[in-house]
Amino acid sequence: MITPDRLDAAVLDAAMGRALEIATRGPEGGPNPRVGCVILSPDGHTLAEGWHRGAGTAHAEVDALSHLAPGEARGATAVVTLEPCNHTGRTGPCAQALIAAGVAEVYFAVPDPGAVSSHGAQTLIDAGIPAQLGPRREQAEKLLADWLRDARRGRPTVTVKWATSLDGRAAAADGTSQWITGPDARADVHLERSRHDAIAVGTGTVLADDPALTARGEENGAPLAQPIPVVFGHREVPADAQLHSHPRELITLSGDDLAADLDVLWKRGIRSVFVEGGPSLASSFIRAGFADRVLVYVAPTLIGGPKLALTDLGVDTIDDQHRLVFTDVQHLGSDLRLTAEPVAPETPSTHPTSGAH
Amino acid sequence: MITPDRLDAAVLDAAMGRALEIATRGPEGGPNPRVGCVILSPDGHTLAEGWHRGAGTAHAEVDALSHLAPGEARGATAVVTLEPCNHTGRTGPCAQALIAAGVAEVYFAVPDPGAVSSHGAQTLIDAGIPAQLGPRREQAEKLLADWLRDARRGRPTVTVKWATSLDGRAAAADGTSQWITGPDARADVHLERSRHDAIAVGTGTVLADDPALTARGEENGAPLAQPIPVVFGHREVPADAQLHSHPRELITLSGDDLAADLDVLWKRGIRSVFVEGGPSLASSFIRAGFADRVLVYVAPTLIGGPKLALTDLGVDTIDDQHRLVFTDVQHLGSDLRLTAEPVAPETPSTHPTSGAH
Ligand SMILES: NC(=O)c1ccc[n+]([C@@H]2O[C@H](COP(=O)([O-])OP(=O)(O)OC[C@H]3O[C@@H](n4cnc5c(N)ncnc54)[C@H](OP(=O)(O)O)[C@@H]3O)[C@@H](O)[C@H]2O)c1
Ligand SMILES: NC(=O)c1ccc[n+]([C@@H]2O[C@H](COP(=O)([O-])OP(=O)(O)OC[C@H]3O[C@@H](n4cnc5c(N)ncnc54)[C@H](OP(=O)(O)O)[C@@H]3O)[C@@H](O)[C@H]2O)c1
Repeated sequence: MITPDRLDAAVLDAAMGRALEIATRGPEGGPNPRVGCVILSPDGHTLAEGWHRGAGTAHAEVDALSHLAPGEARGATAVVTLEPCNHTGRTGPCAQALIAAGVAEVYFAVPDPGAVSSHGAQTLIDAGIPAQLGPRREQAEKLLADWLRDARRGRPTVTVKWATSLDGRAAAADGTSQWITGPDARADVHLERSRHDAIAVGTGTVLADDPALTARGEENGAPLAQPIPVVFGHREVPADAQLHSHPRELITLSGDDLAADLDVLWKRGIRSVFVEGGPSLASSFIRAGFADRVLVYVAPTLIGGPKLALTDLGVDTIDDQHRLVFTDVQHLGSDLRLTAEPVAPETPSTHPTSGAH
Repeated sequence: MITPDRLDAAVLDAAMGRALEIATRGPEGGPNPRVGCVILSPDGHTLAEGWHRGAGTAHAEVDALSHLAPGEARGATAVVTLEPCNHTGRTGPCAQALIAAGVAEVYFAVPDPGAVSSHGAQTLIDAGIPAQLGPRREQAEKLLADWLRDARRGRPTVTVKWATSLDGRAAAADGTSQWITGPDARADVHLERSRHDAIAVGTGTVLADDPALTARGEENGAPLAQPIPVVFGHREVPADAQLHSHPRELITLSGDDLAADLDVLWKRGIRSVFVEGGPSLASSFIRAGFADRVLVYVAPTLIGGPKLALTDLGVDTIDDQHRLVFTDVQHLGSDLRLTAEPVAPETPSTHPTSGAH
């Protein structure tokens, strides 16, 4: 059901331009998209503006509507940079909010390719509200490039991290590994934890190390954000494990099918996972092609012996190696921090059927 | 037998200053010391000057004497920055040359601590020529710092090099390892080879790879210098091995006692050894504490599996790890070149009795 445009094209274009401008006020590089929204009266005047301030806060449409008195948006035009969402997250679906507010029509610059949150336009149309592509799609896609890549792939972005000696060992023969890397590297790991939605380990690490999996420290004077702890494996997390005192609720997954597990995380709104080991789980993620970024803290020490940072990757002959490129090299105290990413991004989707977007 | 000084102290000091000045014309960082020599007439005028131009060329004293007609140095004073050598190398012992030339006395700034080449002063004294410490010892020791450290230790400096994936592997499970590192890293390896007196591998590598162990390429328009190839192990180097076509003659050593083997190399005038593997030999050198420098070419690739760049280092618990410091990090094409050295220089001497120098 398409109704003829009521608004002048130039007014619509200006409103979308403004929505894109205020979208950039949102946080860059976070798990959530940067979105802006402008509500226009039937005669083309701006009634309200809103933008998304990051994970856990109101979406742009809801933010804009919040500035209006009940009934004030009735018959209005909502101009949004991204297709309104349809999922019931922490903040409620935007499509429902727009319907409830009584807007007459919706324009959006980019359709949401996500399998979870998409189809907001359809919901609006089903409710009798024309929802269609507006102008400036290219500009909006540029603003959302990283987020769209993830959304099209339909699975969380995975960083696999490990700490190692210069000869690729994670511990000495007896399993001792304290102080391989120094305090600067360890502080950086906490920062990285806080920048991911979830932090994952295998049961082997839980049983061996009883890790807290919290992000400790602060950034810009505020305590670090806490990622959701995720444990992969069949064995039970012990009742007295530190993980049970984590501020976020623990998610446990079997790890039998990593694609399916990532899908579960994605559907729970987790857009980025920090895989901290141990060697078995890290190797499985790499082997399956799910490591979008590899973060290696290398200490200037030699250990030798059997305790490797990675185990088997299914590489029988050199042509099967997992080629990466170094994207960053940093000194952290006496250690090095090496970041590498796949040459041709490894993008197996957990939604093969939606891969064609 | 000490005779009274015949020369004015100021004249002697000026001559030593000049000898130190021309010593710096020699190549820096090479295996040989930078040495200068001034020959003074009995009344204190300069008869000749000489300096050492690097491995395989005349020593400073011989260079200086070469500018004089036979008999012209009779009764002269030789002022040298380093104690004249006593060994019969490619260029003949300097002590004998000074005796043959008929000099009346010798002053040197630094005694030679080496077990092989030292005692040149004693040889002169035994021949009735006063040979004694002259002025500017501190200045001369500064100029010769690296060379003196090696000479006092009495063994070649050892660099252990390997190429590895980001997860510490030297090859895929089936042994294939071509193209782990790229062309820039490989060219750098040839440069490093040319900067060492000898290049060493184990029989495992000889039998598996039939390496040429030549330094291929050029530097400043000249072909690279060729290190002496050394093979460690009991197994025979095959008659048709490429090593037999090497421009320098092959040295084979058992490897049963690395300290004794390094001593053999040292006595043959080899001051630096580049250990290129394989994993077993490299690990033995590290384990024995003979790795003065570790050079690791890291390719941005993940391989996993059993083929490690280093094997066992005798580290059972983390307190036994071999701690190093990163002294250099370089990008070479898409690879990284990491240099690390022991925190407290590992200096086991192959001459325990001369370690007290
Ligand atoms: N240096 C470092 O950076 C670092 C980091 C972490 C840990 N570590 C060390 O690593 C050691 C533990 O090693 P680990 O390899 O046993 O630990 P792990 O990888 O944490 O745990 C392995 C276990 O995870 C479960 N799992 C679930 N899905 C999996 C999958 N797809 N692939 C592989 N495993 C899966 C399995 O347990 P179930 O049988 O329960 O299914 C498996 O046995 C500890 O000593 C720890 O200290 C080192
Ligand atoms: N990625 C790299 O940088 C790199 C470099 C070189 C080689 N490689 C690979 O490494 C593989 C060969 O491995 P490898 O470990 O067998 O080679 P290796 O270290 O070259 O040879 C080991 C052999 O050296 C002899 N040896 C003598 N003294 C020794 C000592 N003190 N310690 C240890 N060994 C001593 C022994 O042979 P005897 O029985 O004859 O006494 C020993 O079996 C090949 O596949 C090669 O391609 C990789």
